[in-house]
Amino acid sequence: MNNETIKKRIRKIRLLLQKKNLSSLIVTKSPNVTHITGFLGDDSWAIITPRNVYLLTDSRYTEQAKNQCRLCKIIQRTDPMPQTINKLLKKLKSPQKLAVETSTSIADFKALKKHLNLKIKPASNIVEQIRSSKDPAEIACVKKAADIAAAALKQTIKSIKPPITESELAGRLDFQIRKANAANSFETIVAFGPNASKPHHQPSNRKLKPKDSVLIDFGVKYNGYCCDITRCFTLGKPSPLYKKAYEAVLKAQTAAIKMVKPGVKIKDLDAAARKVIADQNFPVYGHGTGHGLGIEIHEDPFLNQKSKDKLQQGNIITIEPGIYLPRKLGIRIEDDILVTKTGSQILTRKCDFKSLTQIR
Amino acid sequence: MNNETIKKRIRKIRLLLQKKNLSSLIVTKSPNVTHITGFLGDDSWAIITPRNVYLLTDSRYTEQAKNQCRLCKIIQRTDPMPQTINKLLKKLKSPQKLAVETSTSIADFKALKKHLNLKIKPASNIVEQIRSSKDPAEIACVKKAADIAAAALKQTIKSIKPPITESELAGRLDFQIRKANAANSFETIVAFGPNASKPHHQPSNRKLKPKDSVLIDFGVKYNGYCCDITRCFTLGKPSPLYKKAYEAVLKAQTAAIKMVKPGVKIKDLDAAARKVIADQNFPVYGHGTGHGLGIEIHEDPFLNQKSKDKLQQGNIITIEPGIYLPRKLGIRIEDDILVTKTGSQILTRKCDFKSLTQIR
Repeated sequence: MNNETIKKRIRKIRLLLQKKNLSSLIVTKSPNVTHITGFLGDDSWAIITPRNVYLLTDSRYTEQAKNQCRLCKIIQRTDPMPQTINKLLKKLKSPQKLAVETSTSIADFKALKKHLNLKIKPASNIVEQIRSSKDPAEIACVKKAADIAAAALKQTIKSIKPPITESELAGRLDFQIRKANAANSFETIVAFGPNASKPHHQPSNRKLKPKDSVLIDFGVKYNGYCCDITRCFTLGKPSPLYKKAYEAVLKAQTAAIKMVKPGVKIKDLDAAARKVIADQNFPVYGHGTGHGLGIEIHEDPFLNQKSKDKLQQGNIITIEPGIYLPRKLGIRIEDDILVTKTGSQILTRKCDFKSLTQIR
Repeated sequence: MNNETIKKRIRKIRLLLQKKNLSSLIVTKSPNVTHITGFLGDDSWAIITPRNVYLLTDSRYTEQAKNQCRLCKIIQRTDPMPQTINKLLKKLKSPQKLAVETSTSIADFKALKKHLNLKIKPASNIVEQIRSSKDPAEIACVKKAADIAAAALKQTIKSIKPPITESELAGRLDFQIRKANAANSFETIVAFGPNASKPHHQPSNRKLKPKDSVLIDFGVKYNGYCCDITRCFTLGKPSPLYKKAYEAVLKAQTAAIKMVKPGVKIKDLDAAARKVIADQNFPVYGHGTGHGLGIEIHEDPFLNQKSKDKLQQGNIITIEPGIYLPRKLGIRIEDDILVTKTGSQILTRKCDFKSLTQIR
């Protein structure tokens, strides 16, 4: 991330802190650390004070941090985090109105309170709130991740031939992603035939049979940002039931995507997708209709029946209804959608296997 | 995991709870949930009461949970966790002396306290304590993971030819792992030449050159259990500096492995490895000498200078000293060691690239 992008994020967070009458924030959640520093490693915390942003990392990551976080002061720690923070704050004019993220564990919070001679307040949803509306640099990364994913899937389709196993097919897809110098955003799901009725099926050594269906749910991480795509294929002509279910899912997804724009109630969008499935007399899926994505594969906003939120400009969300008939079939279609000023933009457009693709 | 294995774990945990004057524990940390239930999915919590173990999951995982957790009562939730737990505890005779793991976030702890009309106490290190000493089923899984890793690395060696990129080589290794119906235990590190001076280098599109060195740090996850291995190779004859550094690292690792047995102070083992490196006038590595591994790739015990612990029978640890000379080279050798009743057993023995392997 370039310095200007990071500076803008920091400015937004300081404004939010001011509004909450806070001056400094200890950031312990890894994706939040990435957002405010640009750092792509693990096991590191950040502190944002009125003057500086500090990254607290260890020797495994110091070289990387120097390259990725040009605006941060980098502290190489050997002590546990709470002690390191204590030492740092003693050197500074100890900040008043210090907060820590509520995603911090009870154990770390206890240790911080023990080591710091300061009042420290749990604060929720500060960096997350900024992160849920993506800036142009973030949108570009998710788009690039989606383009890499589309190209990788296209290459991999050639390998969908009996008797390949689910695991090997997943491996071939992952290899295409690696070749493009990217990584998986989560463990690839490949499910043949009835295995697809488990939405989070783990690839097994189940072999592909001549009349199987194939569900692939996967994503690419590019420069720290995720995409998330699901597509279904059949070998030869699908059964009438499969075809009917596929069309219902596609119709449900299309209906939900059409509704995307700022201000739409998330629960209304969720209900619209479910209604299409129910109207066709299929059982309605138990998972959400979608989720935000960015640095995390699942992040705010979450699209479900209980949401009290509205879509906002800059959200990037998945829309992914499905139909699951245990021991029979599983179908899900998933795309990544940017909420624009006036409507939406499908970021996974290059992954153009939308109508049911029959393989041979 | 078979029922007997799970029953034994539950018995140990109930005993520990009794000792701490607790009767029930809310388990929120994913690897701990796996340990006490056998469940290999995500986003699920467990509660262990004096009579039962409950798994709280959602519809994505219900089918999987029924297969993997035959001893649990499975609750399919649609509400957030705290509300789900509240409903469940109301149905039960509400347990007294209820605890929650201290790895739980401040936010979840607050929500639990808000929704439960019960006192709830944070409790640390209960399941972790049981997990740090592996049972025979766990040892078998780590060993199997290590065997798969060794076979995958052997296959991949053939691909170490210029001008392959770091990313592609990582992809080829990952593919071999997938073909064996296993998964990565963490994102594979492949570093060519001076890139290896960053202990957690992320594979790039850097191409392999004719006189490069290659560092590969990777692991396999098999049936929920991790292994973790690092090996170094050179193309052709290594430089005198590389050879000297490699031999120092190997000597340091050998010295530490020799010390492994129950009762040994971890900081003494750590110091022994560092001393070998320092005696050869190389800079001493900043990371720990190793870490426990099992369901997590990094778990108790952590082998570093500040440890106050002793090795215990059943620990599985890595030993992985290194030498890092920025802009010149990076070398690390890592094996997985089981602490047996009288000494140690190297679980990564089949990964027999221990002396410096020259490729062509």
